[in-house]
Amino acid sequence: MAVIRYEIRPGAYADSIVLMQLQHGLRALDGILDAGVVMGTPANIELLKAGDLYPAEAREVEVDDLLLVVKAENEAAATEALARVDELLASRRSVTVEQFPPRTLASALKYLPEARWVAISVPGRFAGGVARQAIELGRHVFLYSDNVPLAEEVELKQAAAAKGLLVMGPDCGTSIIHGVGLGFANRVRRGRIGLIGASGTGLQAISVRLHTLGAGISHALGTGGRDLTAEVGAVTARLELDLLARDPGTDVVVLVSKPPAPEVATDLLAAARELHKPVVIHFLGSPPPVASLGNLHFAGSLAAAADKAAELAEGTVQLQADHAEPSAEAEGRLLRGLFAGGTLALEAVHALQAFLTPIHSNLAVPGVTPLQDPARSVGHAVLDLGADEFTVGRLHPMIDQDLRLRRLRQEARDPEVGLILLDVLLGYGAHPDPAAELAPALEEILAQRRLDIVALVVGTDEDPQDLAAQTERLSEVGAIVVESLSEAIEIAVSRLAPAAQPVDKPVELSTLAEPPAVINVGLESFYDSLLAQDAQAVQVEWRPPAGGDEKMIALLEKMKA
Amino acid sequence: MAVIRYEIRPGAYADSIVLMQLQHGLRALDGILDAGVVMGTPANIELLKAGDLYPAEAREVEVDDLLLVVKAENEAAATEALARVDELLASRRSVTVEQFPPRTLASALKYLPEARWVAISVPGRFAGGVARQAIELGRHVFLYSDNVPLAEEVELKQAAAAKGLLVMGPDCGTSIIHGVGLGFANRVRRGRIGLIGASGTGLQAISVRLHTLGAGISHALGTGGRDLTAEVGAVTARLELDLLARDPGTDVVVLVSKPPAPEVATDLLAAARELHKPVVIHFLGSPPPVASLGNLHFAGSLAAAADKAAELAEGTVQLQADHAEPSAEAEGRLLRGLFAGGTLALEAVHALQAFLTPIHSNLAVPGVTPLQDPARSVGHAVLDLGADEFTVGRLHPMIDQDLRLRRLRQEARDPEVGLILLDVLLGYGAHPDPAAELAPALEEILAQRRLDIVALVVGTDEDPQDLAAQTERLSEVGAIVVESLSEAIEIAVSRLAPAAQPVDKPVELSTLAEPPAVINVGLESFYDSLLAQDAQAVQVEWRPPAGGDEKMIALLEKMKA
Repeated sequence: MAVIRYEIRPGAYADSIVLMQLQHGLRALDGILDAGVVMGTPANIELLKAGDLYPAEAREVEVDDLLLVVKAENEAAATEALARVDELLASRRSVTVEQFPPRTLASALKYLPEARWVAISVPGRFAGGVARQAIELGRHVFLYSDNVPLAEEVELKQAAAAKGLLVMGPDCGTSIIHGVGLGFANRVRRGRIGLIGASGTGLQAISVRLHTLGAGISHALGTGGRDLTAEVGAVTARLELDLLARDPGTDVVVLVSKPPAPEVATDLLAAARELHKPVVIHFLGSPPPVASLGNLHFAGSLAAAADKAAELAEGTVQLQADHAEPSAEAEGRLLRGLFAGGTLALEAVHALQAFLTPIHSNLAVPGVTPLQDPARSVGHAVLDLGADEFTVGRLHPMIDQDLRLRRLRQEARDPEVGLILLDVLLGYGAHPDPAAELAPALEEILAQRRLDIVALVVGTDEDPQDLAAQTERLSEVGAIVVESLSEAIEIAVSRLAPAAQPVDKPVELSTLAEPPAVINVGLESFYDSLLAQDAQAVQVEWRPPAGGDEKMIALLEKMKA
Repeated sequence: MAVIRYEIRPGAYADSIVLMQLQHGLRALDGILDAGVVMGTPANIELLKAGDLYPAEAREVEVDDLLLVVKAENEAAATEALARVDELLASRRSVTVEQFPPRTLASALKYLPEARWVAISVPGRFAGGVARQAIELGRHVFLYSDNVPLAEEVELKQAAAAKGLLVMGPDCGTSIIHGVGLGFANRVRRGRIGLIGASGTGLQAISVRLHTLGAGISHALGTGGRDLTAEVGAVTARLELDLLARDPGTDVVVLVSKPPAPEVATDLLAAARELHKPVVIHFLGSPPPVASLGNLHFAGSLAAAADKAAELAEGTVQLQADHAEPSAEAEGRLLRGLFAGGTLALEAVHALQAFLTPIHSNLAVPGVTPLQDPARSVGHAVLDLGADEFTVGRLHPMIDQDLRLRRLRQEARDPEVGLILLDVLLGYGAHPDPAAELAPALEEILAQRRLDIVALVVGTDEDPQDLAAQTERLSEVGAIVVESLSEAIEIAVSRLAPAAQPVDKPVELSTLAEPPAVINVGLESFYDSLLAQDAQAVQVEWRPPAGGDEKMIALLEKMKA
């Protein structure tokens, strides 16, 4: 009958690698069936329970206690194993402690003053403090640690950005700078594709696929998973985009992230549009707003993002011509879409909401602001005039254009409106000659003020309304007639989307010009990886304040204050 | 000074076309500046107000009142205009009333007994009743009317399906059957691509683009915008998919819709996978789960759906080989994904949730069921083992595989589990030899029971772990090793996704074999369009019960009961 015995070491800090190795060491002892060495968090306790390794009597364990559990064949083996814990810990330490290892960042920098990077993988509650020191010392931060509070991330990134420094992370799994991987990184061919990723394994999956396709990476820059939230505001992604824009070694940029907050997406896409390089974008789990728009290319998966980037890097796809410039005289900056087709309105909303924020609509779409009063537009607005609320006791706008003609004049009276987008659907059942009614109204409007009117005509050369005649009639009064929604979106975005906020203090381009020299604080395996890649690196023999004892730390903090 | 005068006709029903023409007639009279003829709904009143056409004193107007408003240069012109309303109404009627027009469906069918279709465009509150009659008479229904209650749609579709009849709609804008358009439809080349659309202008946009590309349409079948909701359960879309599967004139199927309810999507995709034809799918505003899977192809836009269908119809893309069959001996039907990479887990959840419902996860993804206790999986489950809750005081699973190995054994003990999906990430910083730990565990598991284990290995040929050796080690113990997530998804879906529910009573294939003969109830312009297309059609001179007087209708209903 197996026995489970345990020991609790209150408030004891230990490096996670040390815990793993101690656990492996215990499990290898004679008579030991299994072992667990974990901090006493509720999640870890659940995991011990699930593994049938939890001693029911160990109720008193607390979050910052170290819990050592062994499952043994008999009492004697269990007792002996626990008695050997210190010996196992000591044997581990003796391997890694060097002659005079630096114990602080400042002393490590004396060993390697040219280090521009500090890589941090200490537990989350201590990571912010180390990062703050690194920024004060003028170094970029690669912050692998997770469980760092959001407020601390915001504070760190803003402090760093003010000095032109990057904070990649927290929870940044991967970066490759000038061929050297920080954190987890595959060994991939160097080349001319630069990656930015708010996603660690996303960057890995894309860089591996690019390598497999025969393409190569200039740099892969992590941001941390929360960089594109509204709270953080993409501070790091913006700096990195600006950096890759200037980097002469990067021809194509790939940006991969979970879906950003809408206002962050708008600003980030505005910045991406200003790059004179193709940018491939994949927002995971979010539909691509369009297939492409100017220099932007949207992908639907990690694999597709890599494929598109490789294709662009080969130069098989030419960078499109410059964007249409806003009409010189167009005054307003707002868009109003007046759609007869519900599906076209819906697709327009989905496409536009990435570039123009916020979009108002009578269509219920996540992330889109409902129009309080459908009779009055506010801000950028897209209306489905065929929606139920507009068609009770009234013909559909594809047959009766009265409502749309009135609305068109109403929108044109709003001086803030710069572009009106209409669909004109031809075919059986529809109005026999929509241009005959629309053209005079458009002419009247355009005689009064400068405004862009984009008409998306959906029809075939066999439709009863005469497609060519409809198109000509609308064109001759000054409407911009297009055949596809993506053309209409491209014109609207080119003319109305806001310019990107400039980066206040750009990161020095020389940051990417050489393999990084790194001060590593935390996991020694990352230090080992740096050495294996022939990078210059120094390991800090870091210990948490007061040996990691939370109560003692709190007391020390109070005494300082 | 313009004057506004009005008249209210309580409970008066009028066809929307008649209202539009009356409004046009009034506006053409001398001295009239503008006119509005609408049913007195709050939305219409708002629109009159917005157009400066609302008489402030007309407070007493009710929803089923007809409100006639004129804005005139002077009192005399206004009075005269309103006095001419009946004359204008009469002149309109005299044009269209035929010698002995049928007034009921039954009498119309005596004129045209071969009519298999009834097209209905009367106001929503009356449309259900007409549709019910058509179904009782054994006819398919094209239901253009909107504002039909959801419960009535469910009832109608179920009644029709039990008889092998289609109800397209309500709010069905478009269908093309054997070259003849019902509702709104473009004139497009006939060809071998069949469309199914829960979206009217979506069908139009795709069919127009196919025509422009030189391709052609076999049939375009509408479903109505709510067909893919959980309440309706895709009754019509399923019948139509089954019909196009059997239709010898259709080689490629396109399905376009707003995003379906998750369980509806699963069933619909299961049915689509059973077609021996390529199916192009576009769920508007929803990210394509994968680019392709067997015979399914997912598109990101209406235009992309058309382009892909045209390409498939040209035969340039070959239909892929048959799906992998479920392992003969595999017992369970549940999937468990144990991911070290958060982004890979996220992309897997997004892809799988279209095919396996519900998916449980510790990742917060809309539409995915949160796992109550991350330590215990239920149903189909995808875990990000690198999430914060698993890594407090513990190394990331890319370094320390202990947690995953335990979890792997735990999942394998669940007899309902049929497939376990793992990622194995190589590269610097990661575990130096993950296969050395994983392979023995997999071997032990596979010795005990039949189970599919799919390992997605992400690494390059230059990675320090030796990609080929890792792959071989995992393969030789029986794991299915893949290089891309889409391969892993394809295997999982092929083996675990449920079979589609068979269609109880298929629609007769002969329905599509000839141009439709149609009884039209409602908008005469649709009748005119049918005649213009050389289709056989009869117009019913429909009038609502009790002249549309709601109170009288309610009274009649009571007397019947």
